[in-house]
Amino acid sequence: MTIENNIFIGNKPVMNYVLAVVTQINEGETEINIRARGRAISRAVDVAEIVKNRFVPGSEIGEIKTQTEEIRNPDGRTTNVSSIIIPIIKNQTNFKDF
Amino acid sequence: MTIENNIFIGNKPVMNYVLAVVTQINEGETEINIRARGRAISRAVDVAEIVKNRFVPGSEIGEIKTQTEEIRNPDGRTTNVSSIIIPIIKNQTNFKDF
Repeated sequence: MTIENNIFIGNKPVMNYVLAVVTQINEGETEINIRARGRAISRAVDVAEIVKNRFVPGSEIGEIKTQTEEIRNPDGRTTNVSSIIIPIIKNQTNFKDF
Repeated sequence: MTIENNIFIGNKPVMNYVLAVVTQINEGETEINIRARGRAISRAVDVAEIVKNRFVPGSEIGEIKTQTEEIRNPDGRTTNVSSIIIPIIKNQTNFKDF
């Protein structure tokens, strides 16, 4: 579970991404990075909040990071776009230990 | 400068908010909270990144927090909306000390 685990947020409905995160946590992942650029950043925050508050009790949002990325357009110009990384952390409880 | 200093991001152009933040820092504020809800969250990240990278050398983004807020519609129903707080921190150097 040491491989960095990213879910990229695009233009699909929020619940699609929530389901993707919850599925990975149920498969045993302990840290998932929700990533987004530009306008999808708002949706990324929605995904993180919904996962934390409604679907995965005991999960937490880790240290959120923002960046500026340079994107080259087809016409050769570059534009800057903001991006965000929101880590969802869930310390798994192994019930077999009880 | 101990009073919490908030700038709320709405639907105006990004540079309006950048100017507001830069003005407050130039007036001696050392910490400014950029706040936004819903779709304005993406714009809040833009504001923070532009201030940090282009206008205020030595400024940093602090611990970003997200929340879910309940909003009551005029028809009585409540909806949930995500919100973000992005602290911009600038340790002021007092050049008179040199």
